[in-house]
Amino acid sequence: MKKNYLFTPGPTMVPPEVALAEAQTMIHHRTPQFSQIFFELSEDLKYLFQTKTGEVFTLMSSGTGAMEACVVNVLSPGDKALVVVSGKFGERWAELCACFGIETISICVENGKAVDPADIEAALKKTPGITVVFTTQCETSTGVVHDIQSISPIVKKYGALMVVDSITGIGVHPFMMDEWKIDVAITGSQKGCMMPPGLAFVCVNNSAWAAIEKAGLPRYYWDFREMGKALKDKTTPFTPAVSLVMAMKTAMDMIKKEGIENVWKRHARLAQATREGAKSLGLELFAGEYASNVLTAIKAPKGIDVDKIIKKLRDETGVTFTGGQDELKGKIVRIGHMGYVNDFDVIVAIAALEKGLYDAGYRFELGIGLSTVQSLLVSKKQG
Amino acid sequence: MKKNYLFTPGPTMVPPEVALAEAQTMIHHRTPQFSQIFFELSEDLKYLFQTKTGEVFTLMSSGTGAMEACVVNVLSPGDKALVVVSGKFGERWAELCACFGIETISICVENGKAVDPADIEAALKKTPGITVVFTTQCETSTGVVHDIQSISPIVKKYGALMVVDSITGIGVHPFMMDEWKIDVAITGSQKGCMMPPGLAFVCVNNSAWAAIEKAGLPRYYWDFREMGKALKDKTTPFTPAVSLVMAMKTAMDMIKKEGIENVWKRHARLAQATREGAKSLGLELFAGEYASNVLTAIKAPKGIDVDKIIKKLRDETGVTFTGGQDELKGKIVRIGHMGYVNDFDVIVAIAALEKGLYDAGYRFELGIGLSTVQSLLVSKKQG
Repeated sequence: MKKNYLFTPGPTMVPPEVALAEAQTMIHHRTPQFSQIFFELSEDLKYLFQTKTGEVFTLMSSGTGAMEACVVNVLSPGDKALVVVSGKFGERWAELCACFGIETISICVENGKAVDPADIEAALKKTPGITVVFTTQCETSTGVVHDIQSISPIVKKYGALMVVDSITGIGVHPFMMDEWKIDVAITGSQKGCMMPPGLAFVCVNNSAWAAIEKAGLPRYYWDFREMGKALKDKTTPFTPAVSLVMAMKTAMDMIKKEGIENVWKRHARLAQATREGAKSLGLELFAGEYASNVLTAIKAPKGIDVDKIIKKLRDETGVTFTGGQDELKGKIVRIGHMGYVNDFDVIVAIAALEKGLYDAGYRFELGIGLSTVQSLLVSKKQG
Repeated sequence: MKKNYLFTPGPTMVPPEVALAEAQTMIHHRTPQFSQIFFELSEDLKYLFQTKTGEVFTLMSSGTGAMEACVVNVLSPGDKALVVVSGKFGERWAELCACFGIETISICVENGKAVDPADIEAALKKTPGITVVFTTQCETSTGVVHDIQSISPIVKKYGALMVVDSITGIGVHPFMMDEWKIDVAITGSQKGCMMPPGLAFVCVNNSAWAAIEKAGLPRYYWDFREMGKALKDKTTPFTPAVSLVMAMKTAMDMIKKEGIENVWKRHARLAQATREGAKSLGLELFAGEYASNVLTAIKAPKGIDVDKIIKKLRDETGVTFTGGQDELKGKIVRIGHMGYVNDFDVIVAIAALEKGLYDAGYRFELGIGLSTVQSLLVSKKQG
């Protein structure tokens, strides 16, 4: 009886209620019936991003599509951008900017470390005329969380626009669009939102519109101006992914019912339990003090082929972890605990981790990880 | 007991099997499990486009996204493009080319008429150096089908690339990627493929690669080169819409079971019945001899507010037709018969059309449309 347990950096597990909401009778998107759902979802998404002054656009694309949308909507040929690169997804900002001919300055942060806000200030001081700073809240390739709240005022001080990839941050870590004065932020459906992949969401704060209006890169499918006009009519410029939109409304109903603060607390609690569970097995965390609540990246123990463990667990037990990408290949195991995840899922994750390591010849007292997690979870009340 | 009958130009009705396939357990996209499904789907899609020499990429976007992908993958700054405009979707090619700074020559065809291939030849002769011709197989805004088969050799004769928007054509009208020597063609999931919106498919024939390799417009999310590389590894460059991909596999299984030639014949038969049914009510067809099998566009009878009829039918009976867009607003009714549609659906469509017109004061012998359709469908065997 193999079941699928997705402890991956996305797609994450989908609640049956949400999955079945996708199977609802198809409706036409240019109808009051669809407009009502879309309008309500767009309002819910403001709650998700914690904004009252911004609006949220629903894109039919992956998170990368939303990143491209940000680049072409806030920049003009000749502009300079600053990018914080601490892994694969920070790198993607830099690649996108370069692809669109933008002069890009990258702050390269060591893998597993968070950026020092002072380095951002230094870069902004050194190169005058930077108009946009692209950052990543949670770098899923390394498991690091960056201190967006501290970075934002620095970016603002230098008059630049603050754009945040919070694809895996939103719905996991606290994210305060208005309070932190973020100009543009994005997320994807298949992460904290407990949805299948297919939708991305862009939150545009009112502070970003001047830049968007005057941006000079070509844009059509990604044009925020058209999305803004359409949203006023409770619709989208092009055909939306109707079934995913209906499912997302169900997912947002679940998030609203739990309360976004409780969602954040749940992730903090499960992440802490996972980290302690891993440490009790004698394992070392990759991101250390910068570890996000999205996933726990664990260093491969010496002599242990973690990619083989991951493959074996996936194929034989249905538990899916992921390994490292690119230069981190073979060096880490990433255990996601994002979205539709509860105490018992973390228990399963640690049980599988123990089993995988044990079968591969790594030695520890079997069950020690489980009892560590169990004591933390049972003795610590939710919240 | 209101049921939803979508006689719309897309999204179209989704078979329950396909809808439920969307609700399957989520799996991670970087696994052999997903790769196997994705590989099989990509092979099925070659059958859908009728290609052996091309390959088909699955995009997470609406049809418009796939159109933008074509533009940025085959053109360079300074290139000239020819666009056939016979309605809203031909216009979109022109808008996209203009947006990306391409010099664009438009052949404007009267609404409700198909383009004369000789006009394309004249345009190519008059303006040397046109590198790409953008066409539309079925213009859903007017219900017209263009003769792609006759246009393609002309385009080839002048050494230009033939790019076809067959978003509503594929899976409805015969479309022969290889036989007709099409270079690039696109379709969307929510049309003949009986799927929810969310996926678009781009078929790139091997004849198109030279242009794609040297194209100079910036591209990242839409880059066919990256899609081609990823497809060799049975995957996508960015996170795919897993649930929609799984559902699409089910839809393709249904299409393969019916046989693509039978799918085309079914649409031809249902379209003809709808046209004759409408005419028997004394109505005039908008597209006349150029009418596609995608939808039947009917001229509004004098003094009858068809938009009011459409709204009333939708809200009171669940039958959804669509009206005209832009300058055709109030002037036509469009009845879609595309995708998951059979004889009895056409009966329902005509019954609703009769009811709507009758309630609005238009007079005819009640049931005459139904009996016309019934005699055509019952006396004419499938195929």
